[in-house]
Amino acid sequence: MARIAVVAGDGIGPEVVAQARKVIDTVAPGFSYTEYDLGAARYHRTGEILPDSVLDELAGHDAILLGAVGDPSVPPGVLERGLLLKLRFVFDQYVNLRPSRLWPGTASPLGGVKPGEIDLICVREGTEGLYAGAGGTLHRDTPAEVATEESLNTRHGVERVIRDAFARAAARPRRKVTLVHKTNVLTHAGGLWARAFAAVAAEHPDVETEYQHVDAAAMFLVTQPQRYDVIVTDNLFGDILTDIAAAVTGGIGLAASGCINPTGAKPSMFEPVHGSAPDIAGKGVADPVAAVLSGALLLEHLGRREEAERVLGAVAAELSARTPGAPLRTADVGDRLASTV
Amino acid sequence: MARIAVVAGDGIGPEVVAQARKVIDTVAPGFSYTEYDLGAARYHRTGEILPDSVLDELAGHDAILLGAVGDPSVPPGVLERGLLLKLRFVFDQYVNLRPSRLWPGTASPLGGVKPGEIDLICVREGTEGLYAGAGGTLHRDTPAEVATEESLNTRHGVERVIRDAFARAAARPRRKVTLVHKTNVLTHAGGLWARAFAAVAAEHPDVETEYQHVDAAAMFLVTQPQRYDVIVTDNLFGDILTDIAAAVTGGIGLAASGCINPTGAKPSMFEPVHGSAPDIAGKGVADPVAAVLSGALLLEHLGRREEAERVLGAVAAELSARTPGAPLRTADVGDRLASTV
Ligand SMILES: CC(C)[C@H](C(=O)O)[C@@H](O)C(=O)O
Ligand SMILES: CC(C)[C@H](C(=O)O)[C@@H](O)C(=O)O
Repeated sequence: MARIAVVAGDGIGPEVVAQARKVIDTVAPGFSYTEYDLGAARYHRTGEILPDSVLDELAGHDAILLGAVGDPSVPPGVLERGLLLKLRFVFDQYVNLRPSRLWPGTASPLGGVKPGEIDLICVREGTEGLYAGAGGTLHRDTPAEVATEESLNTRHGVERVIRDAFARAAARPRRKVTLVHKTNVLTHAGGLWARAFAAVAAEHPDVETEYQHVDAAAMFLVTQPQRYDVIVTDNLFGDILTDIAAAVTGGIGLAASGCINPTGAKPSMFEPVHGSAPDIAGKGVADPVAAVLSGALLLEHLGRREEAERVLGAVAAELSARTPGAPLRTADVGDRLASTV
Repeated sequence: MARIAVVAGDGIGPEVVAQARKVIDTVAPGFSYTEYDLGAARYHRTGEILPDSVLDELAGHDAILLGAVGDPSVPPGVLERGLLLKLRFVFDQYVNLRPSRLWPGTASPLGGVKPGEIDLICVREGTEGLYAGAGGTLHRDTPAEVATEESLNTRHGVERVIRDAFARAAARPRRKVTLVHKTNVLTHAGGLWARAFAAVAAEHPDVETEYQHVDAAAMFLVTQPQRYDVIVTDNLFGDILTDIAAAVTGGIGLAASGCINPTGAKPSMFEPVHGSAPDIAGKGVADPVAAVLSGALLLEHLGRREEAERVLGAVAAELSARTPGAPLRTADVGDRLASTV
C-alpha cells in the first residue's frame, strides 16, 4: 500500500490538503499518511527549512502531497529555494505536469470559449534552466553592482522531459506536441531544445509537432487556447505559461500540478498551483478543488488510473453544480467530492 | 528638421511603413527620409545583415522607422541577433516602450473588458538580461551536450530604465508603477532589480508602487489588465508580458513599440510589434495601424507631442468606424488616417 508524506504547509495549505486526503482515502482506501511540518511556520519557530533527516524520511515515501508553503513574513527565495525547489531538484522531479481544462460550470475570462474546448497539459521541465540557482552578485548595492543568473541545460535533462511529453501526447486523442522556447534569442539553450525535440519527434511519426516562441505562445494561450494539446517547455517558460493557462481556465484556484520523477526511484510531489493565501487562511472558505485535482494526479502516478478518473468525475459534477460567485465552505466541498467519487 | 532612416524590411514591412510615413509626413511635414535595405531579402541577395557602413549612416539619423524584418527561410537568430538586437544594443536603446490600450471599436478576447478600461505602458529593459548573448554550447549534439544562457544585469542598466518608468508614471494620471520580476527564484538579478526599484521609488513619493512575480503578472494581465498603469520589467519578461498585453487589447496587429535611447545621443527606433507576416505580404491587406502608432511614438520622442496626439486621435476614429472582421486595404487605411490627422 502506498505511503504518502503529507506536507500541509502554511496558510490555507492544511485546509485544502485535508480535503484532498479525504477524497483520496475514500476512493483508494488503505494508503498510509505521515505528516511533516515544513514551511513558514516551522521556519519561524525553529529556523529550520528542510532538515536532512526529514529529507531522508521523505525519500522513503511513494509520493508527497503538498498544500502550500510560504508567507509574506519570510524573505523571497528562502522557502522557495530551500524547500520547494530543493524537493524538486533532490528528488529529480523533472516532469512538472500541469493540466489545464475548462471545466463545465466554470467561467473563463475569455468571451468566446466554452467548457470542454480547452484541454491541454503543459509538461514543464523541473530540474534545470534558470532554476538551477547558478547566479551571482558583485559590488552589491553600489553603482558598480552586477547580478547574473545562468540557465543551465543538458541534453540529458531536456531529452528526457521531451520524451515524457511525447509519450503523454501519444496517449491522448489529439496527439500533438508544441515546443515552446525562444530559439531566436536564446540560441544556445534554444538550439539544444530544438535538436532534442527533433530527435524525439523522429521516433514518434504519429505525433504532430509544432514550435512557437514563448512570446507567441503567451499570446495564443489567450487568443486560441483551444489549439494546444501537449506543451513542452523549459522551467521558467513553463512557470509563466501555466499561469496563463490557469487564468483562461478559471484561475489558479482550480490548477493542479505534479512534480514527477517518472522513474519512480524517488518520490513525486503533488501540489495545487495556488499559494498559501494568508488573507483567507483559517476561515474555511478556500476552494480545495486544485488540491483534490492534484490528488488525482497522485493517484494516476501511482497507477490508480481508474480512481483518478473517478475523482475527475466528482470534480466535474461539483463544478457543474456551482453557482458562479456563490460562497463555498472548504470542508463541504471535500465532503461532497468524497461522497460522489 | 528631423532625419528619419526608414528600414522597411521584409514581408508586409514595406506596405505598413509606407502608411506610417504618409501619416507622419502629413502631420509633421518636412522630415527627410532615407531608405535602407536591410532584412531577409538583402541577406539572401548579398549575405550582408548589417554592414558597419550602414550602421554608421544610421547613427547620423534622429530616428529609425522600421517595418518588420525576418522570413522563415532565414535560420532563427540570424536577423534577430545580427540586425534587430544589434541595433537595440549598439544604439543603447534601453527603454523598450510598449503601450497597450483597448481602443474604441476594438474587441478584446476578454469577455468583461470595455474599450478605455485597459491603458497601460510596459517599460521593458532593452539592452541587458538574457538578451546579452552570453551563452555557450559544449559537446553539441552528443549525449553530453550542455547549453547555457546568462542573464547579465547591471545597477547602471537597471536603475536607468526604472528611472524612466517612474518619470513616465509621474506624468500619467494614475501614477502607478508595477515592478515585475521573479525575485523568489532569480534571487540575484531579482535582488538587484528590487533594490534599484526601492531606491528610485524613494525619490518619487507621489508614485504608487507594487511588485509582482512574472507568473502572477502574466495571470493578472488576463484576469485584471485594468489594474496596470506602468509596468517596468526586464528584457525577456517584457517580451512575454507585452505580447499578453497585446493579446488582450486586440492583438499584435495594433501593438506599437519604441526602442528608445532617452539621452538622444543615438537614434531611437520605432517598429510595430508584429512580424513580417509572409503569408499576407504583397496583398495590400495588412493592417498598418501598429506601424502608424509606432510613428506616433516616434513623433512624441522627437518632441512633437501635439502631432503625436493627432495621430492617436485619427487612429481612434479609424478603429471606432470599423466593422469587426470586415476586410481592409492597407493603403486605404493609410489614406483615411492621413486625411483625418
Ligand atoms: C513558488 C515558486 C518557486 C514556484 C515556481 O516558480 O516554480 C511557483 O511559481 C510554481 O509555479 O510552482
Ligand atoms: C524578434 C525578437 C528578437 C524580438 C524580441 O524578442 O525582442 C520580438 O519578439 C520583439 O518583441 O520585438
